[in-house]
This record gives sequence, structure tokens and C-alpha cells, in this order.
Amino acid sequence: MNIRTAVYPGSFDPVTLGHMDIIERSAKAFERLVVLIVENPEKKVSFSLEERRALIEKVTSHMDNVSIDTHRGLLIDYLRGHDYRIIIKGLRAISDFDYEFQMALTNKKLAEEIETMFMMTRAEYAFLSSSVVKIVGPMGGDISGMVPASIKEDILHRLTSLKGEE
Amino acid sequence: MNIRTAVYPGSFDPVTLGHMDIIERSAKAFERLVVLIVENPEKKVSFSLEERRALIEKVTSHMDNVSIDTHRGLLIDYLRGHDYRIIIKGLRAISDFDYEFQMALTNKKLAEEIETMFMMTRAEYAFLSSSVVKIVGPMGGDISGMVPASIKEDILHRLTSLKGEE
Amino acid sequence: MNIRTAVYPGSFDPVTLGHMDIIERSAKAFERLVVLIVENPEKKVSFSLEERRALIEKVTSHMDNVSIDTHRGLLIDYLRGHDYRIIIKGLRAISDFDYEFQMALTNKKLAEEIETMFMMTRAEYAFLSSSVVKIVGPMGGDISGMVPASIKEDILHRLTSLKGEE
Amino acid sequence: MNIRTAVYPGSFDPVTLGHMDIIERSAKAFERLVVLIVENPEKKVSFSLEERRALIEKVTSHMDNVSIDTHRGLLIDYLRGHDYRIIIKGLRAISDFDYEFQMALTNKKLAEEIETMFMMTRAEYAFLSSSVVKIVGPMGGDISGMVPASIKEDILHRLTSLKGEE
Amino acid sequence: MNIRTAVYPGSFDPVTLGHMDIIERSAKAFERLVVLIVENPEKKVSFSLEERRALIEKVTSHMDNVSIDTHRGLLIDYLRGHDYRIIIKGLRAISDFDYEFQMALTNKKLAEEIETMFMMTRAEYAFLSSSVVKIVGPMGGDISGMVPASIKEDILHRLTSLKGEE
Amino acid sequence: MNIRTAVYPGSFDPVTLGHMDIIERSAKAFERLVVLIVENPEKKVSFSLEERRALIEKVTSHMDNVSIDTHRGLLIDYLRGHDYRIIIKGLRAISDFDYEFQMALTNKKLAEEIETMFMMTRAEYAFLSSSVVKIVGPMGGDISGMVPASIKEDILHRLTSLKGEE
Repeated sequence: MNIRTAVYPGSFDPVTLGHMDIIERSAKAFERLVVLIVENPEKKVSFSLEERRALIEKVTSHMDNVSIDTHRGLLIDYLRGHDYRIIIKGLRAISDFDYEFQMALTNKKLAEEIETMFMMTRAEYAFLSSSVVKIVGPMGGDISGMVPASIKEDILHRLTSLKGEE
Repeated sequence: MNIRTAVYPGSFDPVTLGHMDIIERSAKAFERLVVLIVENPEKKVSFSLEERRALIEKVTSHMDNVSIDTHRGLLIDYLRGHDYRIIIKGLRAISDFDYEFQMALTNKKLAEEIETMFMMTRAEYAFLSSSVVKIVGPMGGDISGMVPASIKEDILHRLTSLKGEE
Repeated sequence: MNIRTAVYPGSFDPVTLGHMDIIERSAKAFERLVVLIVENPEKKVSFSLEERRALIEKVTSHMDNVSIDTHRGLLIDYLRGHDYRIIIKGLRAISDFDYEFQMALTNKKLAEEIETMFMMTRAEYAFLSSSVVKIVGPMGGDISGMVPASIKEDILHRLTSLKGEE
Repeated sequence: MNIRTAVYPGSFDPVTLGHMDIIERSAKAFERLVVLIVENPEKKVSFSLEERRALIEKVTSHMDNVSIDTHRGLLIDYLRGHDYRIIIKGLRAISDFDYEFQMALTNKKLAEEIETMFMMTRAEYAFLSSSVVKIVGPMGGDISGMVPASIKEDILHRLTSLKGEE
Repeated sequence: MNIRTAVYPGSFDPVTLGHMDIIERSAKAFERLVVLIVENPEKKVSFSLEERRALIEKVTSHMDNVSIDTHRGLLIDYLRGHDYRIIIKGLRAISDFDYEFQMALTNKKLAEEIETMFMMTRAEYAFLSSSVVKIVGPMGGDISGMVPASIKEDILHRLTSLKGEE
Repeated sequence: MNIRTAVYPGSFDPVTLGHMDIIERSAKAFERLVVLIVENPEKKVSFSLEERRALIEKVTSHMDNVSIDTHRGLLIDYLRGHDYRIIIKGLRAISDFDYEFQMALTNKKLAEEIETMFMMTRAEYAFLSSSVVKIVGPMGGDISGMVPASIKEDILHRLTSLKGEE
């Protein structure tokens, strides 16, 4: 089985500097990294699947060993389908812990051979989530230092147009 | 007042092996146990009150000292109406703690004579909740080891039909 | 800059004895206190902005150095607009910690000069939130000891009328 | 097996109003309660076993269904030796949770038939521990409201004499 | 009573950049700040009271409104003796929460008029404590970015000499 | 740099089934695993370095890609000395989180290129630590299910002899 490729799943709605921290560090710790945008029909998103993919592509284009994929359904089915076995997740402070703990144990129950590995998000991004970006951006707060500079305008544009639609 | 009967309240939408763990252990620690399905009009459920009751009946039919009841309104009103004074709650790891702490103190404020007693869910069910079953089941994940074997098919049937309705 | 005035922001939907605890203590620790009702268009409220303001006015009328204001938008914009720099927040037990930690760090990122100061809610109000009042009240539970006596009837009246509208 | 008697184990070095809260509430929820002073040779104590027992006797003498005992060794051996099966523990806020969770699961592993039941300490005693009493007392802080009035002087006397011995 | 002066108590064994963050921010939020080195005879320290004071003096000499003092005994006695009423504490992530919560409630019990106000330590210092410095320094780890540059050598010198004494 | 070898550091005083869970899973997720016994002169241990090494050797002898090593000093110095960059740590429920979070961020500060990856300990070992074994064993509790069967007697023998020495 392929243990040299890791899969980093998430909504990435939109990708933040906290995600980038995990992507960059994982890309150095594994030979290949798949950033996997997981579609969750229950979850209301601000950016379409295509938009989210385009944003991640823009900010990872310089990393040769990073690819992007999308998936709908159980995460473990994606890994099994590709013969992967390593899931990477970021842990920001305490708030993520319980949910991720529950998900990791559920996935272990469903697929014994698959491992979830956690990396602590760098301290300066501990506060950061896609939600913070989506709240602060449309109210005119400065989201520099929250999202990669190269996609800041794309994100603000989308968030502002959403607000207009309300 | 009746301190030999305990009341185990919950949504049970649907009943899981985690619930069964608490039911079986409580039924040994008290002379009688009432499994109380609490209706919460604000909470969207996947199984009707009748379905939830039928599922619990199926999996507790072998326990002589366990009965099932339903209630709408304040939990303490149910206990006072029956002259009961012991509430049983399960605590899975940390995630339940804060909410249950708040509820126990609220109930203490509302009804000084009623006691909430907590039992730690067995470690192997720490990850398990009705929500996990409802997410994993319809996506084709194996929910054996999450729900009692005798009602697994009933649960899957209902969850799949719900998905079809979307 | 004005460091003798503190701003205590919140939804106050409705104001509880837990809020009153923080208001009374802050009013003694700073020369002036602004209770700031923050409008959040995303959040469904039970009391209108005018109702929430009227309730707070009723219970703070005896405090000379407390004023009330309302704001829509980023909290830091309110503070900067008035040249204030101190935000006061209450922390009840653990449940508030993560969210408040994230908000404080976000605000620090957005406005370096503004400080958030936390006060621990008095232990007897650790369980109390506006939500508890809104759940318990309409079901006939006694909300004395949860809200100031002088506005208890106003709150019950509103909560009961809301229930009738459902 | 005897499920009408509960065992409340602890160091009680010395007994506080937080312990008294659990003792009084347990004594109403079970037909008999044994307050069990557990000797832990690794733990440095301020009050001798006899002193701790005398203090608890003084403050529980009015409760007919409460008895006091002492034990050295595994807690479950005490319960098995007396054919008891219910352990009562108090949970103050979050700080106790992890340790108690670990102990309850360890005891479950060692003795499947024994149950640990947790009661949330009343909010006004959430801050209180024997350690707080032992720190605050000798420095001249007022420990009224921390320990039962009838043994306050005994406790202060002992704590002060200890300080003199240093 | 004096509400324009805040007291920031601690062991400061030794002072770190995390402490400096709180000192600098408090000094801007209050008109005067007293950094109070609290002697705790039970706690083994690496730096003498005089050394700790000298280190703090060196790094706060440029701040006109910051003074340094030492105290042995209950913190609230110091505040009452000087007619102060505001205590400032830093909260790093979750680990500090429980202890500080307990201390704040204890102090509230002992001295109703005194308020403890918490500031969240800046995210980049969330990991940092005097203990980390004392572990990493003597093993040759780089403590730049953990302590103020101007006292780094003093601290390393002391920590290394301590190691030699073992 | 070598990213196919992971280092799993710890005291292993003694090795438990919880450690074995992490060792076995890591050995499948990486091409080579080094179990690193870290000597900490400040920490009182029950098993000598040689004993701890012998116990781990006994229970990992069947795993071809696992080797054992010992280290005194900063963990990152060991990794740098061998050109390794991956540290593996197990997280049991919440209790480990804060400490491990602090250590991971400290190591990141000291050595940017080294990554700590966390795996959640299997739920049934969530309660388990070397300390539990050392408390329960000498008091006659059954430590089967806590330590590997093949070294159970060695561990009990050592723990009992220690008790005799007291």
C-alpha cells in the first residue's frame, strides 16, 4: 500500500493561511500530497467546488508534489479507491480536538488500515478558520494575514458579491 | 420519594450501542430504569417518536426492569409527576461535559430535590453518537459495532429512505 | 486614547443575571461602561433590538456611569469610532473559552491597539445563558434567579407570545 | 449485590463544603452512604487519618444513614469485600474530568460489575478543594464558606501548627 | 479606590516574552502597572527574588508607568494594603484556564471588591512558559524568541550554573 | 532528508499496550520506526534505562522495521544528528493535548524543519498510562489488558520489588 502519499481533506471554503501552513509542511513530510476538497451536501458553502479548487490551485501551483482532487461520500472510500492510507489533519488549539478525535476513531472503526495523523497548526494561525474570513471580510475587516496574498482579492470579491445577494 | 427508579432521558435518534451500554449498566445499578424519549420540537429528527420507541423496545425487551416512556416539556416536570428523583446521563469524553454540566446545574436550580448522576460511556463507544450513525449509514459505511445488531437493518432502511426523499 | 471607558458587547437576548454580574463589576472597575448591543443579521433573536435595549435600560437605570448603545458591523470599528480601547467579556466556565479566545486573537489581528479583558462570571451563574432562559421560560420553568426580578414578567410575556406564534 | 449503598471515596484532607454537598446529596439518593477515607502512602497529607475521620464524624453525625470507613489499597477491593457496587464521585468543573475519566475506566477494567457515578458539585463550590483551604488558611484568609462552621477552628488550628513546624 | 493601577502578579522565574507581552499591553490599558513578584515558599525557584527583580527591572526600565514590587502572603492582602482593586493575569490557551478560574473565584470569595481581569497571551507565545525556558536553555536549545534579548545571557548563565550544581 | 523514518519518543516506564498500539500503527505508516527512550534526569523512574529497553525489545522483536535507541538531551538534537525529521506522538483523550501542543510548538520554534505528527490512541487504551500500571500493579490489580502478555510478569516482578524497598 502507498504510504508515501498523504491526503489532506477539508472544505477549504476558502483556503486560509492556516490550511497553507499544513499543506506546506505536509508536502515536505510526505513524497506526495493530495489536497482533497470533500463535498458535504449538508453544509452550506460560500464558494462553489470549482471556485475552491481554483483558489487552491493558484496557491499551490509552485509545489510540484501537491495535487488537488474532490470527493463526495465517505473519506475512507476515497483512500481505499486510490490505495492510500494516510490522512493528514490540522489541529488548532483545543476547539478542533473533540470533533477530530471522534472522526479519527470513527474512521479507524470503518477502516482499520487507514491512519489519521494530526499536525498542530502554527501558533499564529490558531485563531484562524474559514469562518473568521467569511465573517470579517464582508464587514470590511482586513483579511491580509488570514489568506494568501495572491487570492485575497478573489476571496473578497466573492464574499462581497454574496453579501449583495442577501 | 422513589430513589430506586432512575430515568435515562435522551433523543435516541436512533438508539446506539453507546446508549445500550448506559441502559444495561443503569439497569443493574437501580431497581428500575425508565428510558425516557424526550421530544424537543426545535430539534429536527430522522426517526419519528414511534419509530424511536419501537427500536428501543426491540433492544430492551429482554430486560425486565426497563420500561420506556416519552415526554414533552421540562424533564424535571416528568420526574416530579412520577415522584422520581434520579436522572442518569452518559458522558462520552470531553465533548459532552460542558453541555451536561450546564443542564445539571439548571435542573438543580429548577428542582433542588432531583439529582443527575453521570456514568462514563465505555471507552470503545467514546466516539459514537446518533449523528455519526446518521452520517455514516447513508454513505454506505458499516454501522455494525455502532448500533445493536437486531435493529441495524431497520435503521439503515430508514436512513436510506430519508436520503431518497432529499 | 480613552482607557477609562470599557465596552461590554453582546446580544443580550435577553439580559440575564450573569450579564448583570459583569455589568455591575465592570462599572466599578472602570469609570464609564458602555453596554453595546451588537446586531448580528445572521443570528435569529427572540427580542427585537428595541426590546433588548429597553430591558437593559430598566435594570441599569440606577447606575450613573453605565450607558447603552447599539452597533452593526465589526466591533473594533465601534471602538475606533469612539476612540475607546477596552473590550470587556465574561467567561463562564470552559464553554466560552475557545470561541472567546478565537475572537480576542482575531480582534488583536485587526486592531493592535484594542484590548479584550475577560472577567470570570460568578460561579452561581456559570450555568446561565440567554438560551437557558429562552428554553426554560416557555416550558413553565421558574426563571427567577436567572433574570433580574424587575424584568422577569416582561421576558416571560415575550417568550410566551413567541411560543404562541409558532 | 447491594446497590442501595454507595461509597464516596476521597482523601478528605480536610473535608470541605464541596465534599459536604456531595455527602448530603448522596445520602438522599441512596439508602446508605459510606464516606471512605482512602489512604494513599504516596500522597503527603496535612491531617492524620484519625484527624480526618474525626472531622468527618463531627459534620455527619446528624445523618443517620452515613457511616465512615478507611481503606488502604485498591478501591475496588474495598467494594468487593463489602459486596458494594456503587462509587460516588463529585465533579467540579472541568479540572476533575480527565483524571476521573481515567480512574473510572481503569476501575471498569479491573471490576466490570462496579459502577462509578458522578455528581456535579454545586456551582458555588466549583472553585473549592482541600488544597485551596490549606493554602488560604495558614496565610490568614477567611475559610468560612469553604469548610463547615463547626470544624473551622479545628482545621485552622491544625494548619497553623503545621506552618509553625516548617 | 484606585482603579487606575493594575497589579500583575506572578513568579517570573524568569520573566519571558509571554510576560512581556502582558506587561506591555497592560501598561497601555491602565495608567499605572505594578509587576508583583509573589514569593511562594512551597515553590522551588531557579532565580532568587533579587535576580528575578533585577531581570524585570532591566526589561521594563523604558516604561515610565511600570513599577516592580514583591509580596509574601495572600495576593488580596497586597491589593488591600495599597488600596488597589485590579489584578491582571495572562491566559495562554487552555492549560491555564482551570487553575486561573479557581484562583479568581477564590479571590472573589476572599475579597469581593477585587477584580481579576484576564488578557489572552498573544498566539505566538501560547506555548511559552518559564518552565520551557528552564528545560530548553540548559540543554543547549536556543531561547531567543522566548526571553527578551537583553537578558538572554543573564538567564542562560544562571541556568547553566544551576545545572553544574546538580 | 529522511522522511521515511519516524521517531517515537517517550519514557516507556514501562511500555504499555497503549504504546504498542502506536508502535504497531506507526511501523505500518512509515518504512522505519525508531522507538526512542528519552532519559530525563528530573523524572523519577521505576525501571532502569536497560530494563525499559529490554522490555521494548521483547515486545517488538517480531517487527523488522522497528529499532530502539536511547537519548539524553533535546529531542530535536537526536533527530538532527540522524537527519530524521518526523516525530510521532500518541494522543489519549484530552489530557495529553495541552502538554503535547506546547511541546510541538516549542520544538517547531527550535527546529523549523522537524514535524511532530500525532496519532489518536485507540479508544480502549484511552485510560491507560504507565502511571496507571505502576499504581494498580503493586496493589494487586490485574494488569492484563494494560501491558503486553509476554512482559506482564517482568513488570509485576519489578513493581513488587520496588514496593518492598520502600
